Amino acid sequence: MCSLPDGLDLVSGRRLEHVDIAYETFGALDEGATNAILICHALSGDAHVAAGPDKHGAEKPGWWEVMVGPGQAIDTDRYFVICANVLGGCSGTTGPGSLDPATDTPYGTRFPLVTVEDMVAAQAVLLDRLGVKKLLAVVGGSMGGMQALAWAKFYPERVRTCIGVATTPRLAAQAIAFNEVGRTAILGDPDFAGGDYYGGAQPEQGLAIARMVGHITYLSDESMRAKFGRRLQNRGDHAFDFVTEFEVESYLAYQGRKFVERFDANTYLYMTKAMDYFDLASGADSVASALAETPVRFLLLTFTSDWLFPTYQTQGLVDAIRVARGEVSFAEIESPYGHDAFLLEPEEQRRYIEPFLARALAEARGEIAPHTSGGDAQ
Amino acid sequence: MCSLPDGLDLVSGRRLEHVDIAYETFGALDEGATNAILICHALSGDAHVAAGPDKHGAEKPGWWEVMVGPGQAIDTDRYFVICANVLGGCSGTTGPGSLDPATDTPYGTRFPLVTVEDMVAAQAVLLDRLGVKKLLAVVGGSMGGMQALAWAKFYPERVRTCIGVATTPRLAAQAIAFNEVGRTAILGDPDFAGGDYYGGAQPEQGLAIARMVGHITYLSDESMRAKFGRRLQNRGDHAFDFVTEFEVESYLAYQGRKFVERFDANTYLYMTKAMDYFDLASGADSVASALAETPVRFLLLTFTSDWLFPTYQTQGLVDAIRVARGEVSFAEIESPYGHDAFLLEPEEQRRYIEPFLARALAEARGEIAPHTSGGDAQ
Repeated sequence: MCSLPDGLDLVSGRRLEHVDIAYETFGALDEGATNAILICHALSGDAHVAAGPDKHGAEKPGWWEVMVGPGQAIDTDRYFVICANVLGGCSGTTGPGSLDPATDTPYGTRFPLVTVEDMVAAQAVLLDRLGVKKLLAVVGGSMGGMQALAWAKFYPERVRTCIGVATTPRLAAQAIAFNEVGRTAILGDPDFAGGDYYGGAQPEQGLAIARMVGHITYLSDESMRAKFGRRLQNRGDHAFDFVTEFEVESYLAYQGRKFVERFDANTYLYMTKAMDYFDLASGADSVASALAETPVRFLLLTFTSDWLFPTYQTQGLVDAIRVARGEVSFAEIESPYGHDAFLLEPEEQRRYIEPFLARALAEARGEIAPHTSGGDAQ
Repeated sequence: MCSLPDGLDLVSGRRLEHVDIAYETFGALDEGATNAILICHALSGDAHVAAGPDKHGAEKPGWWEVMVGPGQAIDTDRYFVICANVLGGCSGTTGPGSLDPATDTPYGTRFPLVTVEDMVAAQAVLLDRLGVKKLLAVVGGSMGGMQALAWAKFYPERVRTCIGVATTPRLAAQAIAFNEVGRTAILGDPDFAGGDYYGGAQPEQGLAIARMVGHITYLSDESMRAKFGRRLQNRGDHAFDFVTEFEVESYLAYQGRKFVERFDANTYLYMTKAMDYFDLASGADSVASALAETPVRFLLLTFTSDWLFPTYQTQGLVDAIRVARGEVSFAEIESPYGHDAFLLEPEEQRRYIEPFLARALAEARGEIAPHTSGGDAQ
């Protein structure tokens, strides 16, 4: 845990006097502090990116352990990996479920809206505290990728490379619409109680519906057909009732129930709003001018069946980086798994990420000259 | 209004003793009864397919008036058009909001689950009462198209042609999943009260959420970008609050509120369940064997951006009809409007439907010999 010494001024104009950041590190920082990688998590993630003991000492899987760990694409035997729960989160970092020091009660929706930029500003203070002046790489998928892009925009001198997977410089209307359905379900749940539900009944129905909608958007039509088809659970024929009967219904209901046990509905509101607000071009005429002459080298990966963060959006970003005279590698990976592919296709991602990081590390250590012209990964 | 004289035995094994069918007709049946067309409506439709006076005599737009009316593709100066509210509906036909004669209270969820086959069986009795032995065409989009396909399967001797637009022989898992989100929102709304909410507060929140999800699936990413983009309503900058601020949010919230005023939440449950259950192959080995040697001629239309009823599903049906040695014309229409294109692209549909119907009418009247080999519309 790290407490920010000076509080945090937010993009909204509001200020948080007290901010704690829950973070974990994996591997060791080398002598020249050349090997630090910050991993940014997505909507429902936390600081526990790789397998290892949790805060109580029990061994716990990491949410991206297929990518981050000893011998993985982001090899913790080689790199010093940092992952922090985002500002507004519900896994240790200050968020709407934290106590407001002014009232000694949980903030609820009195917590100020946070932006992706605010999340990144908090992470920058954390890195100061850890003695990391410059990151070898900032890496993230989905909302984590938005943070990685914000790092490149706001702290170009502090990141050598930016790896964005299944992400976007801004959400389109359809993704905002799905987020709004989830928020409407939470805000309208009678147990939401204006956000002041801590210590009482949780808005479980609303949060479960939000998660069900989310899950559909994380998968693809193709993967859902392969995984569930039209199969019925526990029976050969229809029930002619409103019970759950198709396997896909049962899967979604389970995902909804499971999520409610581990996630805070208010944080869901704050995270989705931060994603909706994020626009890499904000404050500039365009993404290209926001990133003009950027010294950061980018690796951007998308997946063919990801319709929530579709390839055309990243392709637009690639074009903008080139207009900005930046360096970018880009690959669209063939996968049936939809948006979830960033969690499910480690081998394909490794093909691009491992050599990209190895070259960056060699450059950081002065072993090879910096690469100066952009190129496509495919 | 037409009361079925013998009640109705349902696919579920249950029976409705008393069934009223609300229907409207447009145009006139010709002497040989060759020109009757049945239009089947989608989830939220009703019998008022074309513009004309409603039951109170007030002029009212029809839900498919761009396609059905004097001089339209389905020309009511030429054809006798029948449209009935489906069984289980909430616009005059017997459904969950109707009084159960056994208890003299609304059925609620004690109403038996109805299938697309049941809807069609009720329509068949209506046609008997109207003196229509054989339809020139049965036409429908979305769930209406499922009914049109069921007509071709169960009453092949009673339909010359079947026109299915933006429809499918069966929903895939993704569409069932979206339906289940809507049902979960309705069933979990405290005002749902087990379905016995008539006369009290309606489950408005649940039904509105269901409609919001539905609306996203009726549009396309492309059309939502064109229609809303990331524009904010009534302000140039973010509110940093959980109020509705993106235009797309405001649109969805409006669609949700508007729907609650005109539609019954129980009917929403029954319609989505009927769609989920529908499988043109049920009772047979395959769609091809279900339609073996069918004498019905098919015209099937899809839209490029319709991801709820995607073209690949209709393409599979086209292949099955050909295996069944049936006749089918098929076209995929280029449109950005998603599933809603069937309501928004009359000119493109007219190009295929108008000549298809004209030829069928000429054949029905013996003016030309029946066409015997299938062909593609494109």
